[in-house]
Amino acid sequence: MTDDERHDEQHEGTAPGSGEARAPRGGISRRGLLGLLGTGVGAGVLGAGVGVGADRAVQAHATGASGASALYPFAGRHQSGIVTAAQDRLHFASFDMAGGTTRDDLVSLLRDWSAAAARLTQGLDVSEAGSVGGSPLAPPDDTGEALGLPAAGLTVTIGFGPTLFTDATGADRYGIASRRPAALVDLPHFSGDQLVEALTGGDLCVQACSDDPQVAVHAIRNLSRIAFGRASLRWSQLGFGRTSSTTRGQSTPRNLFGFKDGTANLKAEDTAAVEEGVWAAGSDGSAWMDGGSYLVARKIRMTIETWDHASLAEQQTVVGRDKRDGAPLSGGDEFTAPDFSAAATDGSGPAIARDSHVALAHPDQNGGATLLRRGYNFVDGNDQLGRLDAGLFFLCFQRDPRRQFVPIQTALSRNDRMNEYLKHVGSAIFAVPPGASEGGWVGETLLG
Amino acid sequence: MTDDERHDEQHEGTAPGSGEARAPRGGISRRGLLGLLGTGVGAGVLGAGVGVGADRAVQAHATGASGASALYPFAGRHQSGIVTAAQDRLHFASFDMAGGTTRDDLVSLLRDWSAAAARLTQGLDVSEAGSVGGSPLAPPDDTGEALGLPAAGLTVTIGFGPTLFTDATGADRYGIASRRPAALVDLPHFSGDQLVEALTGGDLCVQACSDDPQVAVHAIRNLSRIAFGRASLRWSQLGFGRTSSTTRGQSTPRNLFGFKDGTANLKAEDTAAVEEGVWAAGSDGSAWMDGGSYLVARKIRMTIETWDHASLAEQQTVVGRDKRDGAPLSGGDEFTAPDFSAAATDGSGPAIARDSHVALAHPDQNGGATLLRRGYNFVDGNDQLGRLDAGLFFLCFQRDPRRQFVPIQTALSRNDRMNEYLKHVGSAIFAVPPGASEGGWVGETLLG
Repeated sequence: MTDDERHDEQHEGTAPGSGEARAPRGGISRRGLLGLLGTGVGAGVLGAGVGVGADRAVQAHATGASGASALYPFAGRHQSGIVTAAQDRLHFASFDMAGGTTRDDLVSLLRDWSAAAARLTQGLDVSEAGSVGGSPLAPPDDTGEALGLPAAGLTVTIGFGPTLFTDATGADRYGIASRRPAALVDLPHFSGDQLVEALTGGDLCVQACSDDPQVAVHAIRNLSRIAFGRASLRWSQLGFGRTSSTTRGQSTPRNLFGFKDGTANLKAEDTAAVEEGVWAAGSDGSAWMDGGSYLVARKIRMTIETWDHASLAEQQTVVGRDKRDGAPLSGGDEFTAPDFSAAATDGSGPAIARDSHVALAHPDQNGGATLLRRGYNFVDGNDQLGRLDAGLFFLCFQRDPRRQFVPIQTALSRNDRMNEYLKHVGSAIFAVPPGASEGGWVGETLLG
Repeated sequence: MTDDERHDEQHEGTAPGSGEARAPRGGISRRGLLGLLGTGVGAGVLGAGVGVGADRAVQAHATGASGASALYPFAGRHQSGIVTAAQDRLHFASFDMAGGTTRDDLVSLLRDWSAAAARLTQGLDVSEAGSVGGSPLAPPDDTGEALGLPAAGLTVTIGFGPTLFTDATGADRYGIASRRPAALVDLPHFSGDQLVEALTGGDLCVQACSDDPQVAVHAIRNLSRIAFGRASLRWSQLGFGRTSSTTRGQSTPRNLFGFKDGTANLKAEDTAAVEEGVWAAGSDGSAWMDGGSYLVARKIRMTIETWDHASLAEQQTVVGRDKRDGAPLSGGDEFTAPDFSAAATDGSGPAIARDSHVALAHPDQNGGATLLRRGYNFVDGNDQLGRLDAGLFFLCFQRDPRRQFVPIQTALSRNDRMNEYLKHVGSAIFAVPPGASEGGWVGETLLG
């Protein structure tokens, strides 16, 4: 298989209603199909074995198809869950390695996570014994709440935080300090940041996306359980209603400000732009990150009560787009390029304010820098004043945060009119290694 | 329209893919179809106007159909969201009336909520001007994040807590203290309760269920906004992955213990049992509650880490059912009635332990008492020890909590083997009035 073929495989998925028969979770072990793991025959083959073919992959890719029957492979040149058509639900988790753990512990954890993720993404329990197939006298390997549920497009994407390389005391716990990529920067303090330590950072992350929240939660819960004694949850976040479309087949969803969000996002089909802006290359400086990417996560509370008291005109000025159809205020439709030189019809200045969100975030204003955004809306109940605790869990992937997220966010944090309605409370950055080889594990290029 | 016809209307919904054309949210006002509200022509007619016919209702009812195109009427003999086929997602909110509010404030709030809910459940913005149709110089009536989204089976169900009738100081704020139904009891303290005040009680509740979380959140957010100055959020809860099937067409989902939950639940099709066990009758003592029901909500944390360390045998003994297929441990399949007299095959005692959850919760052990359960799983992130903050948001509807929830929970709280793995942290009870008349409002039988 060539790299290009593996790259294409990354986008595979069975389209809904394609009719491919699949053994249900918990049933497959009875049929003796397994024992694939730990034998060097991994997820790629497993994916092929259940009928994920290239033609179907193209179909899913072209339509942005998703749904209960979508299946994505775990192995491949790139990890799934980056350019994969954005699923509807998210459970994101940040982990810290336990004190006293060794490099062997880290390797065994990544091997175990990869083996489990390769199964989970195919709609299987975490192990062959799974939730009901082991000894009745032992705790089941799998917690069981996804038993009988399809994978629903589950992807599991694993990343490494700066503190995995060098901890807060400067210690090189796992012998990898010298291999920390230059692009894996410590994020600077941005103007207005109100970060909460408990929502920030982490040695490792796992992004689980699925069209079924129970499947995403099941993945994080079981990977947390597998980590027992080696790593533990630092923080986690559920999200819904994808706010960013990552393929052309997806309509642009709305964020909790009620605006379409992600119109100008990088799309998976823009292969040249994706190669340029999303995937790290070995020649960038860290050979082990070739085919990987860098993830920045920001938990952004929206002060929606304040926003809801703003006039429609103010809201549109802040965003720089029309609320109904998402067209830039310089005219056209949603997909018309903003014209930052156009004047307002009343002659009062530019049609799109210089300090609007669309102006400051636009590639034209950032030396061409783009991001692949993959954020989700969240509502975490309400605060004691009866205000919904709601906002955007912003996720973006990129080749080099030094040239992409950091300068863009620096400009936004200083001047964006939207800042009045936002509060950044959580922040993290992770190096997302390339995908596992078939039968291999995420991190093998660094630690293998 | 007879009561029976109205009753049937309660179950109406357009089946997915039925092809009925609908104007999108935000588009309908352009077509001048509205102005129905506040003119005495309400949701029932609106529902009919967009093509919700009895034949389609039967189809949706028979299949348990749901999905993006499902529409349920707001008006009817009963409120929707009780025997309606359980949707996938929940946003539940408890509200307190503001200090100094009058009976007129309460009536105006219920009228405004009903008018908005009648529109929202039909996939429309909260008002004709909506999110983009008003003056650009004013805040939009609707927050807009559901613009372009279908109703996805949205139901909005409103209830009245005990403190609406008599507040904590004993004051009869709204002149309705004498009309508090005897069945709307203050729930007793149950053994093991660890209730958190901030997650308990409330003057009013709104249950929003939809197959799209963004639609459910949009409903609660906009109803909160409409309440401004009259009532404010006390607590709210998001949930997913229905844990209880309420119609025969729905497969039984799993709770976060990994077990099927709701097998023996009351089903909407069991009309005699529903009449007997769910709907209050005027002859029960409160004429204004005729056609209403009583809702008990309990936020139940599951100590899933402890559960996950229990053996499969222990888990099955606790539940009294097989984990894989949900069959009672006395044998058969999921839908076989449990045989509490059957002996274990090893002769060690009864096949189903007397203190198992299924034994203690079963109608046979509770004088025939049943509940219509409509709970949802929740995950609210994690605690500082890295444990998922997860569990069951238990919702049940019944004719009289004194004969149903209270005795059942009393027995469970004392003896249920499952208690070791549960922590009840939130609790509330509400009288859920009958549905609004066409063009009317929920609460009109009490306050009209």
